[in-house]
Amino acid sequence: MINTIRAEVVTIGDEILFGQITDTNTQWISTELTRIGIRTVRKTSVGDQVDAILDCLGEAHQRADLIIITGGLGPTKDDITKKTLCTYFGVGMVRNQTALDLVTSFFVKRGREMTDINRGQADLPANADYIQNDWGTAPGMWFNYDNGHGRKVVYVSLPGVPFEMKSLMTHRILPRLQQHFETPIIKHKMILLVGIGESFLAERIEAWEDALPPHIRLAYLPSFGTVRLRLTATGTDEATLDRELTELVDAVMPLIEQHVFGFDNDELGTVVGQLLRERGMMLATAESCTGGYVAAQLTKTPGSSAYFQGGIISYANDVKINQLGVDRATLAEFGAVSEQTVRQMAEGCRHALNVDVALATSGIAGPDGGTPDKPVGTIWIACATPNGTVARLLKLGQYREQNIQLTTAYGLNLVREELLKTHP
Amino acid sequence: MINTIRAEVVTIGDEILFGQITDTNTQWISTELTRIGIRTVRKTSVGDQVDAILDCLGEAHQRADLIIITGGLGPTKDDITKKTLCTYFGVGMVRNQTALDLVTSFFVKRGREMTDINRGQADLPANADYIQNDWGTAPGMWFNYDNGHGRKVVYVSLPGVPFEMKSLMTHRILPRLQQHFETPIIKHKMILLVGIGESFLAERIEAWEDALPPHIRLAYLPSFGTVRLRLTATGTDEATLDRELTELVDAVMPLIEQHVFGFDNDELGTVVGQLLRERGMMLATAESCTGGYVAAQLTKTPGSSAYFQGGIISYANDVKINQLGVDRATLAEFGAVSEQTVRQMAEGCRHALNVDVALATSGIAGPDGGTPDKPVGTIWIACATPNGTVARLLKLGQYREQNIQLTTAYGLNLVREELLKTHP
Repeated sequence: MINTIRAEVVTIGDEILFGQITDTNTQWISTELTRIGIRTVRKTSVGDQVDAILDCLGEAHQRADLIIITGGLGPTKDDITKKTLCTYFGVGMVRNQTALDLVTSFFVKRGREMTDINRGQADLPANADYIQNDWGTAPGMWFNYDNGHGRKVVYVSLPGVPFEMKSLMTHRILPRLQQHFETPIIKHKMILLVGIGESFLAERIEAWEDALPPHIRLAYLPSFGTVRLRLTATGTDEATLDRELTELVDAVMPLIEQHVFGFDNDELGTVVGQLLRERGMMLATAESCTGGYVAAQLTKTPGSSAYFQGGIISYANDVKINQLGVDRATLAEFGAVSEQTVRQMAEGCRHALNVDVALATSGIAGPDGGTPDKPVGTIWIACATPNGTVARLLKLGQYREQNIQLTTAYGLNLVREELLKTHP
Repeated sequence: MINTIRAEVVTIGDEILFGQITDTNTQWISTELTRIGIRTVRKTSVGDQVDAILDCLGEAHQRADLIIITGGLGPTKDDITKKTLCTYFGVGMVRNQTALDLVTSFFVKRGREMTDINRGQADLPANADYIQNDWGTAPGMWFNYDNGHGRKVVYVSLPGVPFEMKSLMTHRILPRLQQHFETPIIKHKMILLVGIGESFLAERIEAWEDALPPHIRLAYLPSFGTVRLRLTATGTDEATLDRELTELVDAVMPLIEQHVFGFDNDELGTVVGQLLRERGMMLATAESCTGGYVAAQLTKTPGSSAYFQGGIISYANDVKINQLGVDRATLAEFGAVSEQTVRQMAEGCRHALNVDVALATSGIAGPDGGTPDKPVGTIWIACATPNGTVARLLKLGQYREQNIQLTTAYGLNLVREELLKTHP
């Protein structure tokens, strides 16, 4: 019999209630809880108001084993979570010396002056377990609370800044939750695909999906240009679950192999990086419509300087001509968005930056600049390698941001495909 | 006396609770409600479970004047909103002829066969006002409900498909809400700051903040390197509120002026773009540690080619030397992360790309590559203009992603400051 741990996620902040910021935290939190076998049963957002927060926590306490609270921990007057938790738990505030030392060192290191407001960040409700935040100045907190009616509930309070919240959850909270609760064993296996749509993929693997046993669930997680296919197995024996997942992946692979670029936490950029490392090759980019986004995706990975040489962002035609050596006549005859130009961009970049592989992008990202011949979404990509240059036409939609992200995914995938043709 | 209309938004669906889809509906709904003067006081997501939905509605009825429910209206078995509403209101289901005709015509038009499941989409709880959905097959519903304890609450139930929900809200629900409720007027004003921490800012404007009248509220919304200061005024006379907000902004500006880069929906990249346009100047970037992120931020704005020429991503030293003309001896003596190098990068970029203004970044983004002299987070930025070159040292933290984003914000702000010194 598997014990279900029920969690509620509470978000505090007027800015979310009024719709002024997008709340990405709760989705991330419930995904992570699902991963370790904890079931989110409710998510609630309330404003920066004491009564609303007290009501919300009191209700959640009746239903949940775990309540995760984000937001309202900043140093300013509108951040009232800590004071409200004191009221809720019926305790006072105590200054935590470890927290104070950490906040102080944070300011000293940055050569910034420290104020009383900053010192106040080290004050915690007396019943809080202090959770060290190495990523910002607001500590996390863990509470074991019994409201006197026999229900013991774990409360976790975290800052709302996504980077801090995610770091605290990953390094401090999730491991402790796994220790604290007897969670079922949940194993995930993710297959990562590029260049195939969600519904087309679903049709192709329909028979395999219909035959999945009830304790193994499938989810399609699409994002720009890629689809993550997630298998989630729940049970009591880890070895059995691992074996079942391996067998299922083996069974589905022949149907989808040419679209699979990786597994689990792989990203297109890191997969490309690994292929380059294995071949001892260097990559450079020549970006027009993607405007630096491809390079930014590659360089967000630590250590990418081992295989990424650099790039030329050739927004203006003069840069295409002077830095990449694109022929002025080619631009005049075929335009910047053409197979001829994008090939010269890739080859010129490969030469100018003295690398093995170069990726080029040129297109009409939108919303303006389209013509009847070349509507918004017309984008050329090319990859130049020692074996020659391959170009590809993309016909995308009308949304700029989406076009930039899709072009980046398809461009990196083109590099991946070309690298796979050369054995390491 | 202002009559505050309090709304709660309830989202139904397992896929949101488990984190498998991003909920964009509730942000959109609360933004629209705010715009017409209705205050969202809580947002809740519950799963496809009858008890959870009944609990949630019962609780919301105690607090709210308006409850907007999205999701669970599809034709499949896991869509249980209508049945649950029948239970909640204590009514039966009635087939609506207008709805049936519309569903039928929807299928006839597409040449698709109609099943009993599809006909069931025309069944509504007996107390529902039918709201015609011209964008899909699931009707919207409006309920005026008094639970017998004297609280009259409006319930609105809408499909969860964002396009259908938004169309129904815009064309059918929001106009009816404005007729039904006597709504107050709500006005927002946002002041955007860079280069000042949230707590330091709070101290500087403390007296001003303490003197705010009760109908005007302040919020601090920090994100990498910037802080948005939001004033929200509630009242009955638009002109009065506008005047009050203007006076408050005028009063606080002298305290914070040098950090203010814009208002309301401005972004650093678009503000820099506007300053460049006004001066007829072109910008280019020479990025090392930011790896293309600065350029990607600039080019995500439509029309940025009017002021952004392009960039050189000089990840490898060879690119700094060959493409930017950095002196090999400078690199050998001072290193890539130094004032000398970053100045030469900016000046070399300005020359190579033939632009008025160039921004350069060079630093140790981390997590590796730090030394005792230059720990991770040591980052130099420089801006070259016709008036000369200004360089600045940043001492940031140890997290790569954060360092890249902060450097981008501070870099764009340096360009802004330098542009402001030259009159258009």
